[in-house]
Amino acid sequence: MSAQTLTDPASAQSEIADKVTGRLGALAETRITLSIDAMGGDRGPAAVVAGISRSAAKNDKVDFIVHGNAAELEKLIQKKKNLKGRVEIRDAQGIVSMDEKPSQAMRRADTSMRSAIDAVKNGDAQAVVSCGNTGALMATSMIRLRKIEGVNRPAIACLWPSRNPQQFNVMLDVGADIRADARDLLQYALMGASYARNGMGLLRPRIGLLNVGTEDHKGRAELKEAQDLIAGAAELGEFDYRGFVEGGDIPGDTVDVIVTDGFTGNIALKTGEGTAKLIGDFLKEAFKATPLSRVAALLALTSLSRLQKRIDPRRVNGGVFLGLRGTVVKSHGSADATGVSAAIKLAYELAASGFSDRLAARVASVAAAAQTEQ
Amino acid sequence: MSAQTLTDPASAQSEIADKVTGRLGALAETRITLSIDAMGGDRGPAAVVAGISRSAAKNDKVDFIVHGNAAELEKLIQKKKNLKGRVEIRDAQGIVSMDEKPSQAMRRADTSMRSAIDAVKNGDAQAVVSCGNTGALMATSMIRLRKIEGVNRPAIACLWPSRNPQQFNVMLDVGADIRADARDLLQYALMGASYARNGMGLLRPRIGLLNVGTEDHKGRAELKEAQDLIAGAAELGEFDYRGFVEGGDIPGDTVDVIVTDGFTGNIALKTGEGTAKLIGDFLKEAFKATPLSRVAALLALTSLSRLQKRIDPRRVNGGVFLGLRGTVVKSHGSADATGVSAAIKLAYELAASGFSDRLAARVASVAAAAQTEQ
Repeated sequence: MSAQTLTDPASAQSEIADKVTGRLGALAETRITLSIDAMGGDRGPAAVVAGISRSAAKNDKVDFIVHGNAAELEKLIQKKKNLKGRVEIRDAQGIVSMDEKPSQAMRRADTSMRSAIDAVKNGDAQAVVSCGNTGALMATSMIRLRKIEGVNRPAIACLWPSRNPQQFNVMLDVGADIRADARDLLQYALMGASYARNGMGLLRPRIGLLNVGTEDHKGRAELKEAQDLIAGAAELGEFDYRGFVEGGDIPGDTVDVIVTDGFTGNIALKTGEGTAKLIGDFLKEAFKATPLSRVAALLALTSLSRLQKRIDPRRVNGGVFLGLRGTVVKSHGSADATGVSAAIKLAYELAASGFSDRLAARVASVAAAAQTEQ
Repeated sequence: MSAQTLTDPASAQSEIADKVTGRLGALAETRITLSIDAMGGDRGPAAVVAGISRSAAKNDKVDFIVHGNAAELEKLIQKKKNLKGRVEIRDAQGIVSMDEKPSQAMRRADTSMRSAIDAVKNGDAQAVVSCGNTGALMATSMIRLRKIEGVNRPAIACLWPSRNPQQFNVMLDVGADIRADARDLLQYALMGASYARNGMGLLRPRIGLLNVGTEDHKGRAELKEAQDLIAGAAELGEFDYRGFVEGGDIPGDTVDVIVTDGFTGNIALKTGEGTAKLIGDFLKEAFKATPLSRVAALLALTSLSRLQKRIDPRRVNGGVFLGLRGTVVKSHGSADATGVSAAIKLAYELAASGFSDRLAARVASVAAAAQTEQ
């Protein structure tokens, strides 16, 4: 089995976008302009422009505003014949590095990231895609786009391979904010349910609250408080609240949406990714161990590459920012052309379906009901 | 590939005990009495007694005090010829159930768990093994055995398959206490280093503090404080402090010991186990998918079962309680005879090597140094 077969994150990421946005696709007939931060990723603007070109070839209803070093982008874009007339370049010389402090990055007015977000803020584009520094992207999105009514802390939602029919669970927050009180966790539940409903076609998503045990007496005080708030909002939020879940339920079929604070969610996400990566490496070693196992690898090639796609941690590395006045999709920092194209597809479908507005309406209705009750 | 081949937790658990205690074995020439809670596990006392019998056959330097329903135990033990003269039965009619609240369970004086712990407290035995309710076992151990000098919160340490030469990393706390302040995290670092040194033969274990990023500005306030405390104790504690680590480093080779609070550690542990289980199941499906892949599975049998052993989540399910005046080994609730026997072996080696005293001395010396500095 070649290394190529075992690691094809790009096609996997494309497949995931199909999965998630398939249900939204039917709604998406509008012409959409996407704002792309071309400078953030590990592979530089060439990979991003290649991804844009790929998306443009597949979808004739999408146009682009691309942000970064104009001279460099000009050259890259001119080489792609199919981008002619579909891309506007906006010059932004500043680049946010991967290890830059978010609080610092969000203050810089000259960055491609800020410029990309501002195009959505100004209404020139309907969603933004960036491969850049996650913390900086969230911080800048928050001050430029602002939060929707009723949301205190926006969250990053990721998809997790699971035993559920839809093949993925949603987990949030996976790193927007290291803190979350009971009200924040309620908002995550509402936003996660909305994402699962619109993105996965689940009419009544099942929600679980991540804890160290499933019994009611387990865990921190804010979790018990959140438990009551979430259970109370289930009817209006049109979801089923299934109570506390444990780490083992994240890839399970007990619930569709796992709600947690950004500290715990981030560590769970990276632990799961790291474990999957470790096993993937062990699997490769196992198939190289003996001549017989090498023959076996050849015979099982198709099954194994399908397995590899299902468990590739890079499939779930992208995240959607929830709770902002605008759609922000964070593509993986190391995404190649196909990966970027998959993130673009996701952003297109979410923008075209008006997901951001529908999520805002849901959160507002639950907040209004809570007001009335008080 | 048969289900049998794919899941042999018992032999894996035995192998892990060999690995961990191999270094201690040389020191262990003393006669040791172990106290065994026979009633806790999912499989009942028969599996526990079978495990005792297996251990007794392998090691003629170990005797047992077994706690539980005397009539039932008497019958089971009489059937095992090799246990003649090596087992004392102590009648305890109460059984702690798996979902009993720890605060409730620890108040009951009639349980096999309490009786088993008391045998260590009274000096009749040198270590205790239980397959029972983890929270109850910790709570009861704390009030009966008490904490060692300088330790505020005891911790549960687990082993995690990794890329390190020793094949495992130590992580703690994985669920003794959902809270941990900076001083607790320092104690976890000292205890984890001591366990890695004595259990894995690492002269200078590398310690990492689990966080959502490796940069110094990341994470909660108590983590930054803990960072300074742990770095300051590295020389006296004879470990290398490597700073913040992320979830992906838990199965990695960056550090040998991962320090975190019991809430985060428990969720990381269960997420990793759940992910490994999911991938294991997918792997089985992949090999059943086509006739060719079934042939492939046969050809790769040896390599695959070796892989399965390396990733079986049940290998790392056992935990050692650190920070108590006495050695407590928590075997997996569903452990069979071989699993119980592996836990017994670990308890024997830890007891025979005087690990608990050495850990206490290390923590005391660092605490004394901190006092002097103030």
